[in-house]
Amino acid sequence: MASYYNFISDSFNEIKLPKEPANLYDPIRNMLAQKGKLIRPELCLLACDLFNGITKNAIYPAISFELLHTFSLIHDDIMDQAELRRGKPTIYKEYGANSAILTGDALFAHAYQYLLQYKSIGITKIIHLFTTTAISICEGQQMDMDFEKKVKIKLDTYLQMIRLKTASMIAACLTTGAIIANAASEHQNYLYEFGINVGLAFQIQDDLFDVYGEADKVGKTNGQDIASNKKTFLSVKALEIANKEDLKTLKHYFSKTTFDFNEKFEAIKSLYDKYEIKAIAEQQIAHYYEQAYKHLNAIPVPENKKAPLIEFVEQLMYRNF
Amino acid sequence: MASYYNFISDSFNEIKLPKEPANLYDPIRNMLAQKGKLIRPELCLLACDLFNGITKNAIYPAISFELLHTFSLIHDDIMDQAELRRGKPTIYKEYGANSAILTGDALFAHAYQYLLQYKSIGITKIIHLFTTTAISICEGQQMDMDFEKKVKIKLDTYLQMIRLKTASMIAACLTTGAIIANAASEHQNYLYEFGINVGLAFQIQDDLFDVYGEADKVGKTNGQDIASNKKTFLSVKALEIANKEDLKTLKHYFSKTTFDFNEKFEAIKSLYDKYEIKAIAEQQIAHYYEQAYKHLNAIPVPENKKAPLIEFVEQLMYRNF
Repeated sequence: MASYYNFISDSFNEIKLPKEPANLYDPIRNMLAQKGKLIRPELCLLACDLFNGITKNAIYPAISFELLHTFSLIHDDIMDQAELRRGKPTIYKEYGANSAILTGDALFAHAYQYLLQYKSIGITKIIHLFTTTAISICEGQQMDMDFEKKVKIKLDTYLQMIRLKTASMIAACLTTGAIIANAASEHQNYLYEFGINVGLAFQIQDDLFDVYGEADKVGKTNGQDIASNKKTFLSVKALEIANKEDLKTLKHYFSKTTFDFNEKFEAIKSLYDKYEIKAIAEQQIAHYYEQAYKHLNAIPVPENKKAPLIEFVEQLMYRNF
Repeated sequence: MASYYNFISDSFNEIKLPKEPANLYDPIRNMLAQKGKLIRPELCLLACDLFNGITKNAIYPAISFELLHTFSLIHDDIMDQAELRRGKPTIYKEYGANSAILTGDALFAHAYQYLLQYKSIGITKIIHLFTTTAISICEGQQMDMDFEKKVKIKLDTYLQMIRLKTASMIAACLTTGAIIANAASEHQNYLYEFGINVGLAFQIQDDLFDVYGEADKVGKTNGQDIASNKKTFLSVKALEIANKEDLKTLKHYFSKTTFDFNEKFEAIKSLYDKYEIKAIAEQQIAHYYEQAYKHLNAIPVPENKKAPLIEFVEQLMYRNF
């Protein structure tokens, strides 16, 4: 997918965890073995490379963010009572909630321990950023959980949630790369803003895929968000602009937990179509993209140095994030 | 109780957490308001003072350990399905498991953020120690959970569990005080060993109190460990040395979940008495005390400087830890 994948993947395979207690570490080992696309370390290293900053040590902060992400997935899966993750049973499903709580906690701590193997430029700043990111994803997850109890939320509130839950980590990974490369603090900030905007665009794209994506390409079934009444850019926007009658219909379907899937999906999609939600979402994505590139453009490195990062980000837009 | 309590308590009251999301931070605020005896920060500051090292900044690492401890209590309460903590409903009981998972995670991250306000001597070493401690308490908790599925475990395994779950944090708090005071690394290590041995002694004393303590003095009801079939120094030792017939009786009572409390308590206590478990536990405590003081004595500071730490530790031995 991109230039650092093998380096990251090999390093990921070499992560050393204690053997005992086996009931704590075996679930973590199994979870890490199903490594995902390792997007976060890749973003970190690509950002680092932008400033010619790659050193072997950079892998520690890069991968620590992936471990932090994995910890959050383990705990999210308990809260969502999710049975599958990356095609395999979740730790929650396979080992039970108590085990998933404790393995998540241990992985959170090990993420710090892995990060602390990095002992070079900016370590304190990176630990700060790492910690702020951990706090952000907890806050975002809480907002997301709060949304479940509400039918209608404000679009700004939704955007704040995805900023905290998704975009902040993208931004932190990119910024960490810049810190490792000893980039000027101004340029670190540009990359942070690039990351926030790219992260917001990714999430809205992901929301779009659920309804308008080609299932094969995206790698997941359409309509999952609709089926589970999950708040997305599409549903929040539609509920905001629908007329009284359509609002009633949307609320009706979004409060159903037993339903005919096709009927529900088609009913909601036809209202999305009526209100041109797809076009509105695409405009919002374009807006965030523009903001993202404005910040990237402000970084004075040659265009050919930026190409790998841009290419990677473009590829991600067409995948399940 | 000891000289720094008011300073610690005032600083604890001033901990600033974000207001929103309220469902994330209100439970944490309520939990922190029921502050306990703040033993861990006190140990940290007393150790720091041993080397004349108290600065205002020392409060950050000191309190961060209390936050780490509180995080672990929030998650332990889910795993134990505990209804009460410090006389109030647990977060698990009042807000539900999902909320308790997420507030625990957020507090864990905020413990790091609080720690990071300390920017002086040894910050990197302290972050390492803090992280190792977090890992230890997860490992100890896993061992403790594993014990629930077993009737008989080895005494060494039990001691390893309490070392990880309880003693390691006592040791880390004391060592952190020494690091802040810029004590020689050799003296940091002595304090670590002092803390491990004191922590082991505390836990065995706590186990003893459950059966032989004066309920009023200890502040909790006798026999709670026996009622819940919890592994303690007493039960592990009794199962190790009992003859065949008594072993059968012990196993019988320790596998019961419905029972007459008094009958069960008296039956088990009479076997503890028969095998002189109280005397054995007291010998073990005396052994750890001796080891602890051997290490404390090796630290070349005047006896009058050690007095407050010794006094505090002695007081703790007669309280619920």
